[in-house]
Amino acid sequence: MADGRLVIGTKMYSSWSLRGWLAVHLAKLDVEEVLIPLAGGATSSIKDATPAGLVPYLEHQGAKVWESLAILEYCAEFAPHLWPADRRARAQARSIAAEMHAGFRALRMAMPMTILNTRDGSTAPPEALADIARIDAIWRDALAASGGPFLFGAEFGGADVMYAPVVCRFLTWGPEVSAEARAYMAAVRAHPLMQRWYDEAAREPAEWKLAKYEP
Amino acid sequence: MADGRLVIGTKMYSSWSLRGWLAVHLAKLDVEEVLIPLAGGATSSIKDATPAGLVPYLEHQGAKVWESLAILEYCAEFAPHLWPADRRARAQARSIAAEMHAGFRALRMAMPMTILNTRDGSTAPPEALADIARIDAIWRDALAASGGPFLFGAEFGGADVMYAPVVCRFLTWGPEVSAEARAYMAAVRAHPLMQRWYDEAAREPAEWKLAKYEP
Ligand SMILES: N[C@@H](CCC(=O)N[C@@H](CS)C(=O)NCC(=O)O)C(=O)O
Ligand SMILES: N[C@@H](CCC(=O)N[C@@H](CS)C(=O)NCC(=O)O)C(=O)O
Repeated sequence: MADGRLVIGTKMYSSWSLRGWLAVHLAKLDVEEVLIPLAGGATSSIKDATPAGLVPYLEHQGAKVWESLAILEYCAEFAPHLWPADRRARAQARSIAAEMHAGFRALRMAMPMTILNTRDGSTAPPEALADIARIDAIWRDALAASGGPFLFGAEFGGADVMYAPVVCRFLTWGPEVSAEARAYMAAVRAHPLMQRWYDEAAREPAEWKLAKYEP
Repeated sequence: MADGRLVIGTKMYSSWSLRGWLAVHLAKLDVEEVLIPLAGGATSSIKDATPAGLVPYLEHQGAKVWESLAILEYCAEFAPHLWPADRRARAQARSIAAEMHAGFRALRMAMPMTILNTRDGSTAPPEALADIARIDAIWRDALAASGGPFLFGAEFGGADVMYAPVVCRFLTWGPEVSAEARAYMAAVRAHPLMQRWYDEAAREPAEWKLAKYEP
């Protein structure tokens, strides 16, 4: 029997679920996956199944954890390598993780995650372009200090977990980013867990598709 | 010489600064306080002085930390008692801290922090009322489990740090909340660090007042 369950939304669309799912798999928690298809906002079955009415939501060995960043911190207690070993690098990783958790709303509105599609991002508003420029700078700073290919070095870690859905958005919407950002996006996309998420998204039934995210 | 500096905004108004300031003081980090008066958004001197253009921002022993939640996690490495000792309670504390960090936007728009004032909150939109109800439920859950007077027991901790500015907002705007919430608000308001923040806010020069936050 598993130690608990991870409740997530549709893999095609649920950017926050991807974060919780990556954290749980990187930390190798033994939890059952419960997928509730998104209905486009305020899904009543998600409301009933989770404390804040949102996915991802983790129950593990008696703990109840919601909010992707809290799930990541919970997982990092079992897998400390999710954060950099160096205190200063760890502070930077947590700063950019929290900046993602609270911010980039304009980008999130303009370029929703819809990972099986290719979309035209050329009409994004200036606020979204400012978010993209800030994310590119965050990535370049971390990659320059760590040497890459992931934000804090050789391993896919907690900061990468938080930015993985942004990589998905950029791959779909194709905004202009730096060469360093493109190399980073390729490294994230090639990670075995990302490959698995994309494969599982591709096998989701057609009736889970939501018109608002489709071309 | 201090170990670094904490950059914050006007104490009357800067809700996120209060979080960073409380965390740093609870962990007893030896940092100089640098206060940059807010100008009502996108303050150029804050932009120049901080990585994300926002306060609070902490520099400490070579680490650069921004985002209030990351500053709190950084401080908790020096002061682990900021999070509950029990794994399940700690997961709950981090979940509600992250829920605050990412959410309650409607409340934040409708009831800005303006701690020296009393304002009329009766025209708050339904989304803000939903946020208030959710916060009240979060507080009641934690207080019922811990016995109070703070969210996770006898000590003012990390979750209280994240909700302290909400207490300030509620004291100013007076929304209807439960008796448990009112008792919690009184406990937070009476904490010596909160008392000090209010006193220092009261001594800020009149020219730092911003019309948009004043009655
Ligand atoms: N801050 C939350 C955001 C979670 C969130 O917004 N999840 C969306 C799906 S990606 C959701 O559950 N929405 C409700 C719905 O679609 O019914 C987190 O970090 O987990
Ligand atoms: N998510 C950030 C939010 C910080 C924030 O929005 N700070 C405001 C002041 S409370 C700010 O610096 N605004 C820029 C300005 O007013 O110039 C955090 O947790 O620190």
